[in-house]
Amino acid sequence: MNGALAVHLDTRSDAVPFTSVEHTPAAEVFADRHIGPRGGETAHMLSVVGYHSLDELVDAAVPASIRTDRPLDLPAARSEEEVLAALRTIAGKNRVMTQMIGQGYSDTITPAVIRRNVLESPAWYTAYTPYQPEISQGRLEALLNFQTMVTDLTGLDLANASLLDEATAVAEAVALMWRAARGKAGTVVLDADLFGQSLAVTLGRAEAIGLPVVVADLTDGLPEIEGDLIGVVVQQVGASGRVRDLRPVIEDTKARGGLVTVAADLLALTLLTSPGELGADVSVGSAQRFGVPLFGGGPHAAFMAVRNGLERMLPGRLVGVSIDADGARAYRLALQTREQHIRREKATSNICTAQALLAIVASMYAVYHGPDGLRAIAERVRGRAGAIAALLAEHGVEIEHDVVFDTVRTVVPGLAHDVVAAGARHGVNLWAPDADHVQIACDEKTSADDVSAVLMAFVEARATTVDVDQEGASFGFSHYGVAAAELPAWTARTSAYLTHPVFHLHRSETAMLRYLRRLSDKDLALDRTMIPLGSCTMKLNATAEMEPISWPEFATIHPYAPTDQTEGYAELVTELQDWLAEITGYAAVSVQPNAGSQGELAGLLAIHGYHASRGDQRDVCLIPASAHGTNAASAALAGMRVVVVATADDGSIDLDDLRAKLEQHGPKVAAIMITYPSTHGVYEEGVRTVCDLVHGAGGQVYIDGANLNALVGLARPGELGGDVSHLNLHKTFCIPHGGGGPGVGPVAVAAHLAPFLPGDPTPASATTNTVAPVSAAPWGSAGILPISWAYVALMGPDGLKTATETAVLAANYLATRLSGHFPVLYTGPNGLVAHECILDLRDITKDTGVTAEDVAKRLMDYGFHAPTLSFPVAGTLMVEPTESEDLAELDRFVDALVSIRGEIDAIEAGRWPLADSPLRNAPHTAAALSANSWDHAYDRELAAFPVAALREGKYWPPVRRIDGAHGDRNLVCSCPPIEAYSEGTA
Amino acid sequence: MNGALAVHLDTRSDAVPFTSVEHTPAAEVFADRHIGPRGGETAHMLSVVGYHSLDELVDAAVPASIRTDRPLDLPAARSEEEVLAALRTIAGKNRVMTQMIGQGYSDTITPAVIRRNVLESPAWYTAYTPYQPEISQGRLEALLNFQTMVTDLTGLDLANASLLDEATAVAEAVALMWRAARGKAGTVVLDADLFGQSLAVTLGRAEAIGLPVVVADLTDGLPEIEGDLIGVVVQQVGASGRVRDLRPVIEDTKARGGLVTVAADLLALTLLTSPGELGADVSVGSAQRFGVPLFGGGPHAAFMAVRNGLERMLPGRLVGVSIDADGARAYRLALQTREQHIRREKATSNICTAQALLAIVASMYAVYHGPDGLRAIAERVRGRAGAIAALLAEHGVEIEHDVVFDTVRTVVPGLAHDVVAAGARHGVNLWAPDADHVQIACDEKTSADDVSAVLMAFVEARATTVDVDQEGASFGFSHYGVAAAELPAWTARTSAYLTHPVFHLHRSETAMLRYLRRLSDKDLALDRTMIPLGSCTMKLNATAEMEPISWPEFATIHPYAPTDQTEGYAELVTELQDWLAEITGYAAVSVQPNAGSQGELAGLLAIHGYHASRGDQRDVCLIPASAHGTNAASAALAGMRVVVVATADDGSIDLDDLRAKLEQHGPKVAAIMITYPSTHGVYEEGVRTVCDLVHGAGGQVYIDGANLNALVGLARPGELGGDVSHLNLHKTFCIPHGGGGPGVGPVAVAAHLAPFLPGDPTPASATTNTVAPVSAAPWGSAGILPISWAYVALMGPDGLKTATETAVLAANYLATRLSGHFPVLYTGPNGLVAHECILDLRDITKDTGVTAEDVAKRLMDYGFHAPTLSFPVAGTLMVEPTESEDLAELDRFVDALVSIRGEIDAIEAGRWPLADSPLRNAPHTAAALSANSWDHAYDRELAAFPVAALREGKYWPPVRRIDGAHGDRNLVCSCPPIEAYSEGTA
Repeated sequence: MNGALAVHLDTRSDAVPFTSVEHTPAAEVFADRHIGPRGGETAHMLSVVGYHSLDELVDAAVPASIRTDRPLDLPAARSEEEVLAALRTIAGKNRVMTQMIGQGYSDTITPAVIRRNVLESPAWYTAYTPYQPEISQGRLEALLNFQTMVTDLTGLDLANASLLDEATAVAEAVALMWRAARGKAGTVVLDADLFGQSLAVTLGRAEAIGLPVVVADLTDGLPEIEGDLIGVVVQQVGASGRVRDLRPVIEDTKARGGLVTVAADLLALTLLTSPGELGADVSVGSAQRFGVPLFGGGPHAAFMAVRNGLERMLPGRLVGVSIDADGARAYRLALQTREQHIRREKATSNICTAQALLAIVASMYAVYHGPDGLRAIAERVRGRAGAIAALLAEHGVEIEHDVVFDTVRTVVPGLAHDVVAAGARHGVNLWAPDADHVQIACDEKTSADDVSAVLMAFVEARATTVDVDQEGASFGFSHYGVAAAELPAWTARTSAYLTHPVFHLHRSETAMLRYLRRLSDKDLALDRTMIPLGSCTMKLNATAEMEPISWPEFATIHPYAPTDQTEGYAELVTELQDWLAEITGYAAVSVQPNAGSQGELAGLLAIHGYHASRGDQRDVCLIPASAHGTNAASAALAGMRVVVVATADDGSIDLDDLRAKLEQHGPKVAAIMITYPSTHGVYEEGVRTVCDLVHGAGGQVYIDGANLNALVGLARPGELGGDVSHLNLHKTFCIPHGGGGPGVGPVAVAAHLAPFLPGDPTPASATTNTVAPVSAAPWGSAGILPISWAYVALMGPDGLKTATETAVLAANYLATRLSGHFPVLYTGPNGLVAHECILDLRDITKDTGVTAEDVAKRLMDYGFHAPTLSFPVAGTLMVEPTESEDLAELDRFVDALVSIRGEIDAIEAGRWPLADSPLRNAPHTAAALSANSWDHAYDRELAAFPVAALREGKYWPPVRRIDGAHGDRNLVCSCPPIEAYSEGTA
Repeated sequence: MNGALAVHLDTRSDAVPFTSVEHTPAAEVFADRHIGPRGGETAHMLSVVGYHSLDELVDAAVPASIRTDRPLDLPAARSEEEVLAALRTIAGKNRVMTQMIGQGYSDTITPAVIRRNVLESPAWYTAYTPYQPEISQGRLEALLNFQTMVTDLTGLDLANASLLDEATAVAEAVALMWRAARGKAGTVVLDADLFGQSLAVTLGRAEAIGLPVVVADLTDGLPEIEGDLIGVVVQQVGASGRVRDLRPVIEDTKARGGLVTVAADLLALTLLTSPGELGADVSVGSAQRFGVPLFGGGPHAAFMAVRNGLERMLPGRLVGVSIDADGARAYRLALQTREQHIRREKATSNICTAQALLAIVASMYAVYHGPDGLRAIAERVRGRAGAIAALLAEHGVEIEHDVVFDTVRTVVPGLAHDVVAAGARHGVNLWAPDADHVQIACDEKTSADDVSAVLMAFVEARATTVDVDQEGASFGFSHYGVAAAELPAWTARTSAYLTHPVFHLHRSETAMLRYLRRLSDKDLALDRTMIPLGSCTMKLNATAEMEPISWPEFATIHPYAPTDQTEGYAELVTELQDWLAEITGYAAVSVQPNAGSQGELAGLLAIHGYHASRGDQRDVCLIPASAHGTNAASAALAGMRVVVVATADDGSIDLDDLRAKLEQHGPKVAAIMITYPSTHGVYEEGVRTVCDLVHGAGGQVYIDGANLNALVGLARPGELGGDVSHLNLHKTFCIPHGGGGPGVGPVAVAAHLAPFLPGDPTPASATTNTVAPVSAAPWGSAGILPISWAYVALMGPDGLKTATETAVLAANYLATRLSGHFPVLYTGPNGLVAHECILDLRDITKDTGVTAEDVAKRLMDYGFHAPTLSFPVAGTLMVEPTESEDLAELDRFVDALVSIRGEIDAIEAGRWPLADSPLRNAPHTAAALSANSWDHAYDRELAAFPVAALREGKYWPPVRRIDGAHGDRNLVCSCPPIEAYSEGTA
């Protein structure tokens, strides 16, 4: 407001009005919306657990030795209105420009129907990873469409359902080729025309595992290398915009026994000969320009496709087709044995999260446009680039390449930065790879005005030789047909793609809307039920947190835009990093890692860098037996040797074994990776001792932040003895799981490790890095950081602490109510659990044959997503209710499990044979329940409505239990032919 | 862009690039997304109907005599990106201010979870009016919550599920009291402290029907009136902000035999004694401030509540509780016989559309806040008002009223407009009802900064007597406790409200999200299936059309904001009115009517005004027998006598009867109301003759725009001989039906009627009106006009015409494919229908007993919303597919009806008795289908999956066929007690 009058009102509803107070609390307290239980419910839950207050419970559950004595120093809670207003102010400091930088990031039009009904739809974004495939058929189909799209466009046989970004995808391809070489010593050659960020990330990853890599200009063929050639990565379209004939390099590589990876632009592949047809073994790239906003760098879905024979080496998630118990077609994740949690220390990838939500957006963009629509877009883009080339050439600007797709490279000796600056004045961001070249990348939004602005930039920077009347009329350049001549035969695509009906059936907005609804209706997400997944923290993703990510000021920013255009992002990132440092007790945080796995890698690389800087040759990473598999995989990627430390019966680390391992590996010990509270869901007393012992041996302590939801406001990893942690913003800090990504995994470090945080991947900065970056964009998945920023701002220090306390209460409430029916495996001080509890089914399995999986599948009939199955202990269910579930939902879950226990008892009592029990036959579909014949030992109503509340509204699993092994034996990872569809419906 | 360089690119994908052309067509053609059938599908459909091209079909279907020879003169089609950018520019011309004008419109916080999951959710906004209750249980429950909320807060017995706005609600209350007086001649007294717009609208309506009305200051009791007192309308809180003791006026009115209506503020009623407790018979008001954006005037939900005994006179929709065929609790519209389409010329209301979507938002706001939350908001609002009063009083400003709720009225002789202008400079809109008073209205967003700005406005306008240091520090006015003293006992509310569990169970965001999902899942809307409702035109509501209505620049504008703040709205409205005039062939359009019914009334009042201005005493309105019931009701409200004109067997107007009626009523004939194409779905040849005959008799021709979707681009009502039409923007122009509103019903008139368009309801302007307004806001439901603006801009002239042609093709395709199974009742030239077709079930009913209703209900089992049932001809189904349905969906519908015809044949063949057939038992619930016992004559699978495609994904009706009569006999129109819920689930 103008003037300096300021009136202070006490806006608490229960206060006497007009009292002047310093602080104006929010009228509406967001924490009351985020936290499920109301006041009276909390009291009831406390009484069931046996405590009088949250404080009393927390004092009993959390060892005093780990409690912090310093409250969170964070801004006071603000209302949703206030936080949205603050974010609008921050967003206003980013400048929306025409983005012609390219370099792997193109502006794109997200069809509004997809934006609203996928990106902005809780049914899609609150879903979990499809590990329980029976309740994930919708997003599995969407991801299968993604795989089909990628295999079609790349001309390869099999594609995964997304990697984190193109740069890490290149690194993953290098690792795959290395693994495929089965130990052969040799070198990988990287095309110098790869994107700068791809080179920077890949070189860093290769260095960590000691893999020789050479970067070379491949224009005149492969360079000479010493020893064997493991493989080559070549990029088409090149970072310079050049479209080359790749055949000679590919043939040469094959002749020398190497594999070929082509980093490709999916849109270009609608016009260019596909990598598969050229003979490539692998293709990687980004699907960003298929309708996924720039997001300031991410999240976007990258892809990897391989030829047959390499499928078992494919990192990341792979969706495959199988059958259910009735023989009906059903989708599920295929070849899960490839995953890092199985391979652990033999891993060549630590990929865990995918970019499911963004892969779904990209796949739907292809479904909506179809092959003809995509080709038309590509032709328009190429037409724009050709027009710019012709226009600039007429004005005396030298154009470097003959054959291009979307990017024009000009030669402007000494003037490049002047041209870019002039472009910015006209609202257009151009790209200067060096002082002598300017590149202009076109996309589907490039308009005639943009083309004019580009010319103006060259004119103003005096980079043209022809006079232009700046006040003059329009250019009539009707004679510029040259650059748009047909593509040369060596690169013009002749093969068909996206021939499957799914890319032809949903082309009106009405049809697309219904397809999206139909798919999402098949899935069970947080918008319908609690998802009590131990270790995964499926809490509320509040709408006010989600809304800003759609704003153009966040969504349309290029990751390499000049810093004076991204001040809003810089402010948001800096503030969020500071807040996370305060919450975790560390000195510095980097939000660059775009998944927890990458945060782990960054943290371990920081430890590696620290030891190396001191001249220490430490390479042993101690990992407890109960650790998440990603820990070991990350250690392997950081070039460390994994040594397992035993865990005691109560889930805590076996101190004796730790001492023995420290003794054994002494000066080689680089680090220990622990999780706190442990993956057993218990606040262990001895964590400080563990840290002291490792520090005493000269090692560093890595505390996995997976369970930070049990600590925020109560304790800080950095105060417990941790030197580094990664966080999962998609767990504790409310970024939705998106059906299997995006994740965000910031790395937090103590002061001595701060110099070893990830470097800047921006191509212009990459050469000055002392530490390699771990993802393609400086701030990783910048576009979704507003979610976590908003969460912290909305909750404030008190709200965050209450959330933690309520999460602990909810877990203990469930443990108390369920323990009479299912044994709770581990408890900590005073018989209490932390924020999750493990239900031990092993004795039940022994006695009755009913498995934890049976219970998980039967829960679907009750309308629930299963808890975490058989992690960290086989034969158990790990339950984490989070603070967001209210008493009614917790009780509904208890009712379901108690009812299921009754069903188990009935099996034990011989009422039903196990093989024909509602548990083993679960889940039950509506089709099975309304079939004419029913010859089960139990009746239909018990199968369908085992508790009365289900009659008010029931989720119907669309398929019965899926036979995963069948699908792995008969691997199909793209959309089945249409006949299979009709079979499926027959 | 800067500079005058402009490069023109041909952006057509199939063109040679770089050709300079004048026009740059959109890269993406929106019409291809809006229109369902792809090119090949259109060709197939044409071949089935027997034509080679759309042109040929249209030439055959549409009489040459009605075709226009002038193409639509509208801007060329733009892409979604371009239209969104254009709307952002327009929105930028509206100024977002702190709105303290009040007068029935308060700024409010729409909880983000409700915004995203109701206002922005296709599952809610694409739903139709719940005339088919079995597939509408979700929104019926939400509307029942609305009724419960209103009855609780008003303290009355029964409330309807929304009226159009508070001003028309006052007018409806006056009409209700008049009808309740059963013909007694007498007078209605209106409180002078009613909102200006309520007075303006009500006086206009009363004048039209010749009801004597007196406006009086009721401070010292009722005025003397001649004759009987019919009733009194008094407002609490008054327009002046005053809270009065209403008991004396109410007692006096009752003593004199009159009824009492209290116009009330729902939020104030959380603190003030309710109208019911004061003895009122009726209460009306607006639910806008319960979370519904200001929207520049609308749409908002108004309400009406009545005491027992008046329920059968209640206008608008009333949701009631009944039971289904299994005896389970089920909701449906109650007492439908009250509706205008039944009462026709005896009507005292023509209300047809409600404001369902907005009523649902308001009800969810109450569900989310609960009684304690609402009271806290009210207390904060009252606290702010008290603070402002105290602060201004300390600065020497005279405060007029002692007891207020949210609005402070100050006395500033001669300075009012200066204060308002100064406020605007500080970002705050105040209200000057005259030159000597300024009013400040508070709401839940009012902040301390706003309070400071208010004071600054008074200081700058020199309306204070105390010097203020404008550069000084904050005011510490801690001693101002006076105004916040307890409310006087005569108005302080002591009774409870919102005690039902629904207002207590969904208070966390997670719980609210799931409640919204659960309810919407029960309903069948356009996001899951075609809704082939003849006359209702359920076409695509494109996301790009919908997105802008959430933008603050459209959503937070007060309808009485100064014109220099609403230039964006003015531009949008002017352009849209011009486009609609061009489309309809009229000279002028007013978008003020906020429903089709109000458009009709406005049109008839224009005719009335025109005749009166010429000294003609014409009061006969000719209406065809097949007309929509609203026509007659509107005529009655316009003070006209309805004379019915017969229709011929083919659905056209019986010209002989028309001539006879014109002969009979000659100089009394005011108008004829016709629909074109007729409600029989046929392009009649004789429409010009009808117009000529009526014009010859001195009458005016009113062409109902309900079927405009069959005319756009092909013909213009104004060129056919129409003098006036109303349009339904929620039909032809893509405003979604919202589950039963909002509607928008602009009135379009020829030049000679333009002076008689509705006047400005803005209180400051109302006194200068020569014509009364028909709704409370100058531009009616301004906030949703961007939808229709966007539709026209996106489609362009060619797209609009193709849409019409495709709608005609789709109807003829269905007619052709279905006619072998169900007779098509009416056809026009060449055996073709227009945009809809009537399937005649009457012979089938005669032969087999299967009714049109049975078919309608059985369609639910097939996943379809029924076509229009028994309108305009009893025993028929009227099918309108619209242009938005693609071939696959049309064929799915044909498959369903053909399959149902087979079921009818089976009944006829004696395979099943009618009483135990899948038709009569439809719809079938999942509970019924999976029940242990099944003793029907047909099997379960036939009931559940009569066609194989249903196995891919089936909508499950949540209840079986509902017994409407049971509910009317046992009228329950608020949430049943919780015991009833548990019964329902047992």
